[in-house]
Amino acid sequence: MSIITLTTDFGLKDHFVGALKGKLISSIDNPTIVDISHNIDLFNTLEASYCIAASYKNFPKGTIHIIGVDSEKTESTQHIAMQWEDQYFICADNGILSALIQKKIPQKMVAISIHDRLQEDPTPMNVFVAVASHITRGGLLNVIGKEITELKIVNELTPVIATDGSSIKGNIIYIDQFGNCVTNISKKMFEDIALKRAYTISFHTKKLERIHRYYSDFKNIDKYSLKTFEGNALALFNENEYLEIAIYKSNPKTVGSASTLLGLKFRDVVTITFKE
Amino acid sequence: MSIITLTTDFGLKDHFVGALKGKLISSIDNPTIVDISHNIDLFNTLEASYCIAASYKNFPKGTIHIIGVDSEKTESTQHIAMQWEDQYFICADNGILSALIQKKIPQKMVAISIHDRLQEDPTPMNVFVAVASHITRGGLLNVIGKEITELKIVNELTPVIATDGSSIKGNIIYIDQFGNCVTNISKKMFEDIALKRAYTISFHTKKLERIHRYYSDFKNIDKYSLKTFEGNALALFNENEYLEIAIYKSNPKTVGSASTLLGLKFRDVVTITFKE
Amino acid sequence: MSIITLTTDFGLKDHFVGALKGKLISSIDNPTIVDISHNIDLFNTLEASYCIAASYKNFPKGTIHIIGVDSEKTESTQHIAMQWEDQYFICADNGILSALIQKKIPQKMVAISIHDRLQEDPTPMNVFVAVASHITRGGLLNVIGKEITELKIVNELTPVIATDGSSIKGNIIYIDQFGNCVTNISKKMFEDIALKRAYTISFHTKKLERIHRYYSDFKNIDKYSLKTFEGNALALFNENEYLEIAIYKSNPKTVGSASTLLGLKFRDVVTITFKE
Repeated sequence: MSIITLTTDFGLKDHFVGALKGKLISSIDNPTIVDISHNIDLFNTLEASYCIAASYKNFPKGTIHIIGVDSEKTESTQHIAMQWEDQYFICADNGILSALIQKKIPQKMVAISIHDRLQEDPTPMNVFVAVASHITRGGLLNVIGKEITELKIVNELTPVIATDGSSIKGNIIYIDQFGNCVTNISKKMFEDIALKRAYTISFHTKKLERIHRYYSDFKNIDKYSLKTFEGNALALFNENEYLEIAIYKSNPKTVGSASTLLGLKFRDVVTITFKE
Repeated sequence: MSIITLTTDFGLKDHFVGALKGKLISSIDNPTIVDISHNIDLFNTLEASYCIAASYKNFPKGTIHIIGVDSEKTESTQHIAMQWEDQYFICADNGILSALIQKKIPQKMVAISIHDRLQEDPTPMNVFVAVASHITRGGLLNVIGKEITELKIVNELTPVIATDGSSIKGNIIYIDQFGNCVTNISKKMFEDIALKRAYTISFHTKKLERIHRYYSDFKNIDKYSLKTFEGNALALFNENEYLEIAIYKSNPKTVGSASTLLGLKFRDVVTITFKE
Repeated sequence: MSIITLTTDFGLKDHFVGALKGKLISSIDNPTIVDISHNIDLFNTLEASYCIAASYKNFPKGTIHIIGVDSEKTESTQHIAMQWEDQYFICADNGILSALIQKKIPQKMVAISIHDRLQEDPTPMNVFVAVASHITRGGLLNVIGKEITELKIVNELTPVIATDGSSIKGNIIYIDQFGNCVTNISKKMFEDIALKRAYTISFHTKKLERIHRYYSDFKNIDKYSLKTFEGNALALFNENEYLEIAIYKSNPKTVGSASTLLGLKFRDVVTITFKE
C-alpha cells in the first residue's frame, strides 16, 4: 500500500486538489491519499514547513509527502526529492524542508531532473506525481535526479539561549485555528536548559509559572469546577513538542483565544526565565 | 474493511486532521476513513451531536465513529466507547451521544480505561485511535473499559406537546450552509400527534400550511414555472426526518436564506398547531 | 477498483458530504472516492460545469463523476447519466455538462427512470448513488433510463471571433482562489486563429504582448531576480488549456490578485487582437 500525503495552498473550492488526486490514482496502483492541509496561506513556505514537521511522525515508514506550495521550478529553485527518517518528501527547494533537516540529516536528497522525459511544459504536480509513482514502484532517487548535499534553509526565527543559561527567548511561529500560539521552543531545548529549575514564562505583560501536561490540567480542580478555568491562559508542550500558549476552551470567533485575548501575533517574543 | 468516520472541530487549515489520519493508517490495516465534518463550531457538542445523528444511518454495520470535539478527559468527563445499532462511537462523555441514545438503547457502553497502557500523557486522539484499532481487530469493548449504564445527556431543547394534543412547540436546533433551519420536531412525533389532522406551522409572523415532500414540491407548477417560486419559504422533513424550514433555492451570501430572510436563529420557536 | 468523484455545493461544515460517502460505501464495494469540490457556489451550475471540465481528464477510464449541484428532479429537469470519453457523469439536466458535450459527442445519454424502484421520495443523492452502483457492477445505462439525444445547454458566454479573423473577444468565466481569472478562450481556438501572428491581449486599460509558458516565465531573469516580477500581470494557458490572466505570486488577501489588482470580474471581456 502506497501512502501519499498532500500539503498545498490549492484551497478547497477550485478543482486543483481533485485534479492532483486524479493524476495520483491514474499513475499509482490504489494509493492511500491523505490531506494534511490545502489551506496553507498562499505561497507561505513557513506555514507549510511547520505543518509538515508537525505531522510526518504520525505516518508509517515509506510514506511519500508531496508539498505543493510555491512549487514552480525556476532558475534558482530546483524540484527536489528527499529521503528522511525512512519517509519521502517531494517539493520545490524553497526552504519548506528546513524544519526537518535541522532535526536530523537526510538519508538522501536529489535535484529532480526528469522534466524532459514528461509532456511538454509539465506542471509541478505532473513532475511530483511522476516522482511519487517512481518511488512507489521501488525506484531509487538517484534514477530521477542528481544527488545534492544542501537544501535552502529558510528559518528566520530561532530561539536565543542566554549565554549564562538564565533564559530562552523564542517566538510565535504558528497560530492554529483555536488561536493557540505555537513557539519555536522545543521540549528538548527547554529540558536541556531548565535542568529542573523553576521558571517563569512571560510575553507582553503576562506571566505563567507552570507548564500544563494537557489543556485541562488546572490545579485545585477538587475545589473549583473546571468550568471556572475556561478562558484562562496556559502554556503546554503540544503534541509536536513545542511550547504553546493557549486559552482553555478558546474560540477566536466567540469567547476569544490566545491570539485575540493575549494579543499574540506571528513573530512575537515569548521568554522563559529560569530561577537559581 | 474497517470504516472509520471522523467528526471534529479541528478545522481544515492546521495539520490536526492529517495527523489523526496518519495515526489511524499506522495502526489499522487499510482503513476507509470518511470525514463527516471537521468544521464543527469549536467545542460545540450540540452541533457535533446533530451531525452524528444525521449521518450514522448512511453507514454499514460495524462502522466506527470517532468524535473529536471537546474530547479531553477530565475529572468529570470520561472517555467512552459505545456500541449502538451495530455501529461504534468513540468520544468524551460530554453529551455528544445524547441524540442517539434518546432514540434507542445502546447495546453496550464502556468508560475507556487503557490510558495507562499507552504512551505518557496520551492525547485524546491517541486513545481513540487505540480503541478504534482494538475494535477493528474484533476486540470486545469490555477489554478496553468498564461497562457503564448511563451517559451524560445534553439536550437543552426538547419539543413540547400540548397536553390536549393541539400543538407541538419545537425549536431550531441546527442551521446548515444553505441557511435552512432544522427543528427538533421529528416526522414520527408529527405523525403520532397529527393523526392526519390539518395543521399550521408558524414562527415569528410567518405561517405555512403544508409540508413539502421535496424542496421543489410547489403546487400549480403547470401554471407557473418553478422559477416563480424561488425565494419562497417552505417546510419539509429533511433526510434526517426532522422538520426543516427552508427557502427554495436559498443562498445566504446572495439571495438570502431561511436564516437570513425569515430571521430564524438557533433556539427560535417553531409551532405546529393542529385543527380539529 | 471503482473511482467516483464528487462535485457539490454541499459545503464542508454540514454532514451532507459524509452522508453521501456513507451511501456510496454502503452500496459499492470498496470505492475510491475523490472530492473535486464541495464548495461550488450554491446552485451555481456554471461553476460546477467549469470544475468538471477542468478535472475529468486527470482520471482514468471508467471513472464515475457524481455532480450534486441544483440536483433536484423537477417537471422540467430530469436526472441524467452520460457516458463520455469512456467516463460516466451523473447529475440533473441543468446545463452542468454543457462544457463537455460542446467538446465531443457523448457515447450515450439516458434520462434516469429508476426513482420508483427506490425508497419513497428518494433524494437526488439516493438516485445518483444507485446509478453509480449499477455502473460499477458493469450495468448498462439503458437499464436505468431511456436513451436521450439532447441535453440542456447553459453556456451564456462564448468567445466571438471577428469575421476577418483579426481578433477574438472572450470573457472571464472563472476566478480561482489565487484570484487568477480564466477566460473561455481555448489554446486550440487561439492557435487556429493566430496562425503564428503577433498579438496583443487587452482588458480594461491593460495590454499584454505575450503568453507565458508557466507563471514564472519572465524574460531577462538573468538580469533581474524573479522577485522583481512578483505582482506583475501575465497571461498563460492554464492546465485546462484556457487563457488565464494572472498576477505572479498573487494572494487576494494580502498583495492582491488578477481579480483585485486588475479589477477583473466574472463576464469581463478579454480581447486578443492579431497584427498583420
